[in-house]
Amino acid sequence: MAYLNENYLKLQAGYLFPEIARRVRGFCEKNPEAAKKLIRCGIGDVTEPLPRAAVEAMWRAVDELGRRETFRGYGPEQGYEFLRSTIAQHDYRDRKIDIVDDEIFLSDGSKCDCGYILDILGDQNKVAITDPVYPVYVDTNVMAGHTGPARKDGSYEGIVYLPCTAENNFVPEPPTEHVDLVYLCFPNNPTGAVATGEQLARWIEYAHEHEALLLFDAAYEAYISQSEIPHSIFEIPGALECAIELRSFSKNGGFTGVRCGFSVMSKSLLARTENGRRFPLHPLWHRRWSTKANSVSYPVQRGAEALYSPEGRKQVRALIDHYMGNAKILRDACAKIGLKVYEGVNAPYIWVQASDGLTSWQMFDRMLREINVVITPGSGFGARGEGYFRISAFNSRANAEEVARRLQTFA
Amino acid sequence: MAYLNENYLKLQAGYLFPEIARRVRGFCEKNPEAAKKLIRCGIGDVTEPLPRAAVEAMWRAVDELGRRETFRGYGPEQGYEFLRSTIAQHDYRDRKIDIVDDEIFLSDGSKCDCGYILDILGDQNKVAITDPVYPVYVDTNVMAGHTGPARKDGSYEGIVYLPCTAENNFVPEPPTEHVDLVYLCFPNNPTGAVATGEQLARWIEYAHEHEALLLFDAAYEAYISQSEIPHSIFEIPGALECAIELRSFSKNGGFTGVRCGFSVMSKSLLARTENGRRFPLHPLWHRRWSTKANSVSYPVQRGAEALYSPEGRKQVRALIDHYMGNAKILRDACAKIGLKVYEGVNAPYIWVQASDGLTSWQMFDRMLREINVVITPGSGFGARGEGYFRISAFNSRANAEEVARRLQTFA
Repeated sequence: MAYLNENYLKLQAGYLFPEIARRVRGFCEKNPEAAKKLIRCGIGDVTEPLPRAAVEAMWRAVDELGRRETFRGYGPEQGYEFLRSTIAQHDYRDRKIDIVDDEIFLSDGSKCDCGYILDILGDQNKVAITDPVYPVYVDTNVMAGHTGPARKDGSYEGIVYLPCTAENNFVPEPPTEHVDLVYLCFPNNPTGAVATGEQLARWIEYAHEHEALLLFDAAYEAYISQSEIPHSIFEIPGALECAIELRSFSKNGGFTGVRCGFSVMSKSLLARTENGRRFPLHPLWHRRWSTKANSVSYPVQRGAEALYSPEGRKQVRALIDHYMGNAKILRDACAKIGLKVYEGVNAPYIWVQASDGLTSWQMFDRMLREINVVITPGSGFGARGEGYFRISAFNSRANAEEVARRLQTFA
Repeated sequence: MAYLNENYLKLQAGYLFPEIARRVRGFCEKNPEAAKKLIRCGIGDVTEPLPRAAVEAMWRAVDELGRRETFRGYGPEQGYEFLRSTIAQHDYRDRKIDIVDDEIFLSDGSKCDCGYILDILGDQNKVAITDPVYPVYVDTNVMAGHTGPARKDGSYEGIVYLPCTAENNFVPEPPTEHVDLVYLCFPNNPTGAVATGEQLARWIEYAHEHEALLLFDAAYEAYISQSEIPHSIFEIPGALECAIELRSFSKNGGFTGVRCGFSVMSKSLLARTENGRRFPLHPLWHRRWSTKANSVSYPVQRGAEALYSPEGRKQVRALIDHYMGNAKILRDACAKIGLKVYEGVNAPYIWVQASDGLTSWQMFDRMLREINVVITPGSGFGARGEGYFRISAFNSRANAEEVARRLQTFA
């Protein structure tokens, strides 16, 4: 009988968001009246319509596919040049970061890229992951067999966890021990924390000293409001040789249902074989895409390109401003009732300490029951997230204001 | 320094289609006049515009995303119910195959699914692959470390190759030895061969006897014209317990640039752990999608759904008829000049023996040079493809007729 990948059997019950969906469904079935008033501030999913520029570009692209003269079939497996060059120019070269077009690889989203990237890396790598963090980093490593079994608190043997706590402002320093691969996410999901240039420089110094690889998830960079905070790890000297950056159109252009993101890998990034030979990773990554994919849907690539047009940029800016307006309302409302709040300034997430020593899931259940608001339990993001919860600012203004009102009745 | 996946270093130079593109580019640069007359019958990419039903459905879906009332963000990670149920009903239940909606998993294409599926399988599986065949089956197994190094003929140690030859009509019988995982593709890419119900039944018998898993790629099922040929392996009793089927909208709806396909996995399909415990694979596959993906772009899912509407079905039928009309023209033209041709009756590919004992690449180069037609060298599909080439019927009628004319001048 065919063997299965036993590493899957190590995975803890339910990926976070399906588990939230399950509890919400259960609550709604039992409480149909409350269900009508439910407001979701849980999953980090956008709520506002797509920018007009993207809608129109996608319409045009679909129209092209419907005509013989302009029909296109398979595109380049790493993405169309028109989009790769637009990204490289606007997000990198315009910011004096030396990235060439073919160092951009389009994908169907950063979540997907997190899994794909492990494809080209060795199984021997010692992996460090911040805690709490987006669960996909850990789970994809579990699936790839890079961990031992799960412990009682949901953490896995074999992973080096980097605690993000109120004490370090949720930005960990590099560890004292050696690791080969480090996952960093700033602005952070779930804490909203951002890393300064100095903090990132210390990580790059560590990476060079340990010849480690940094996987830098910048999916939320568009939300950075403080001008001194880097948007890309490549703004820091030395990063091209030790980091891969992941970006997404999900949270700036509202592409969570449209699906498009990209990774950035410099040709100067090296990795090693077991016996110490060094090779650039870029050809492996290129080959991964050639062999395993046909890139992103053509109309989607045109939609993403349109986000960089003058109108597209204005429309994206308006979306960000909208969500960050919500963040301020929610942040202030939490603070007003005495909850300890973090961030919500450079990220669409507010990280909040649960009241009265409640666990994260207790707080989840209480808010669901008492004010019919869905939040995300911090413990779902890692053991160090216990005792916290995340409120997402992805909502309509009316909903954000209503949640703020309901919070005032929350003892 | 981070370790790389050394299995990638075993891969032979260039995935087939990039290598073809390289040679064509080289030829065109040196022969700009001939380049203008070039006709591509190489890569199996569609040429005709998208069915109107799909275009209109995608327009509407993009419009929905542009309005607050109808906006959608993240969809279910395994695909929307509207499309999963449409597929399960039309492609399976209407044909008396007992598949429920959540046994359908949407993806961004069959090529992608070939890589994804290895995710949930163990590395201990002994793998059998037909030869010649779509190179992705072999290459994804090389990347996953399931093979030894490459031999001189491009084959890899550790894989059991199942020769498809003129003697067995390009449909191999099950091997005498034990294997755990078998890749089957019918109608076949590249040979166009189809398997009868009796032939598939022998494979299912083998699978039950050896508790093997069959990965059945049915991407070209829409081209089957002979009524006795099964469209799905699940038409054969016992297949639900031993097979996974892959399907695609690339070649029926012309979605090569739109990107959508699906896999079908019954909940009754089991696989084993190293120490002999048996588990259904379905929850692992479900988890793979939950953790690593956010499914297919929403407008694309609506486009795929539209292919099943009455108009969509008629338009798909017209596309298939168009391409199969080309296949007949090309097949007859090859036969007329004395080339030995196979298939082109149940598939959009004609498999042709190279003339005068030429190798596949010699034939490729000769046809490129002498009649400015790009074909696909059979050896690119495996060692047993040497001495053959594939002509694709994916073209305009005018091009197919012009290729037929040029073939008559080909000595």
